[in-house]
Amino acid sequence: MTSAAEMHLLALRDFPQVESGDDLAGFTVAALRRDDLQLRPDDVLVFAQKIVSKAEGRQIDVATVLPSEQARELAHTVRKDPRLVELILRESRRIVRAAPDVLIVEHRLGLIMANAGIDQSNVAGPEGQCALLLPLDPDASARRLRERVAALTGCTVAVIISDSFGRPWRVGTVGVAIGCAGCAATLDLRGQADLFGRPLRVTIVAHADEIASAASILMGQASEARPVILVRGLPARAPHRPAAALLRPSGEDLFR
Amino acid sequence: MTSAAEMHLLALRDFPQVESGDDLAGFTVAALRRDDLQLRPDDVLVFAQKIVSKAEGRQIDVATVLPSEQARELAHTVRKDPRLVELILRESRRIVRAAPDVLIVEHRLGLIMANAGIDQSNVAGPEGQCALLLPLDPDASARRLRERVAALTGCTVAVIISDSFGRPWRVGTVGVAIGCAGCAATLDLRGQADLFGRPLRVTIVAHADEIASAASILMGQASEARPVILVRGLPARAPHRPAAALLRPSGEDLFR
Repeated sequence: MTSAAEMHLLALRDFPQVESGDDLAGFTVAALRRDDLQLRPDDVLVFAQKIVSKAEGRQIDVATVLPSEQARELAHTVRKDPRLVELILRESRRIVRAAPDVLIVEHRLGLIMANAGIDQSNVAGPEGQCALLLPLDPDASARRLRERVAALTGCTVAVIISDSFGRPWRVGTVGVAIGCAGCAATLDLRGQADLFGRPLRVTIVAHADEIASAASILMGQASEARPVILVRGLPARAPHRPAAALLRPSGEDLFR
Repeated sequence: MTSAAEMHLLALRDFPQVESGDDLAGFTVAALRRDDLQLRPDDVLVFAQKIVSKAEGRQIDVATVLPSEQARELAHTVRKDPRLVELILRESRRIVRAAPDVLIVEHRLGLIMANAGIDQSNVAGPEGQCALLLPLDPDASARRLRERVAALTGCTVAVIISDSFGRPWRVGTVGVAIGCAGCAATLDLRGQADLFGRPLRVTIVAHADEIASAASILMGQASEARPVILVRGLPARAPHRPAAALLRPSGEDLFR
């Protein structure tokens, strides 16, 4: 007989606009209190990358960026603003694919992603003038958020920082975890048995990516966006691993 | 002020072992009734591919397969059973990558995936003797399940058929939708505005993949597997699209 398994996701209501230096954990705790929600130790809070970057002051005025010769040439190929391409190159270790309207890079964090994760939507100011970079170290951001929420509430929950990634081969974006603290970013099932007692073939599950995708369903992308999601009832109890564990080493990768 | 948004996922308890010819919709309705659960029109039922394939009789005895010369050579490269490789080739349009322990193909359905989705875990019989192929047409399977559930309950819900896929660049598998009926496999946000009233840059969301990933968290991979998940409270109301809409046309793909 299988045990009951239920999971609940809840978007925090009326989360304020976030600006550089804001206390995201404080905003979160205030939003929870407004709705009479008490955190539990097995809860996960999923934060949209965008508000973490904003709170950490990762906004850049594109007008201040001087594009290099390489950025200008690449901008011509990919049909993007050379100043934006300059920012993308500064954030990246190398270019994975460049084509009209597509620039996929290896971010210095190891993430393979479009435009080094630099976003110009949902950013204040005239269109195209401001760019928002990823947090400097999203696993560290997740750890800090986790500690600050614990300090404010007495409850130590898990924290995931999510972003939306496109994929090769499949249409559309899905939520992925770029930061993770207090939670297993990957679940290693090696040693577990299948329904008939044999070792499982699929042995590693991208647990934090699946949580980020689930949260993304409620977050939305548009003007109604809800940037913080409370996830309750996760069945997995597994060793904590940061989101860095989700990065495939380039030596094991057949597609870069 | 943002409206409340909550989503609830529930694994159906004590789902029986499925065999060829079984009535999955009937099993599902019986499991719902055991737990006093009433379906609602906005619900989504997510079925693990494995039980759909079993019910559709897609199990094959590997001992009956005669490998071709091509399968034998490829089996040497990828270090797999030549008979399994023969089955993979029969299910595929072409090979995308072959390396030791890795065989990624374009399935005849258009899915780019490892081993053409052929699974040898959680299948009855001696180890390695039985292989389970994908459903012949998972979108059609989803439509049939949806119709049969509606006939049994009077309630027309959405149905997603999920599988676990590895990804280039990232470690671990995530749930994806290989079949979808009565639901938007992709959400097209073109025309919607961001928080500051400008057009959104990320315009297509892989909605059914995110739902499949969320369901996968509760399903598990091992002996406790729960193959049917009820998802309640999805915020999106959007035109229905089959899972085929999630397949990136090869002409737009930079990675195959």
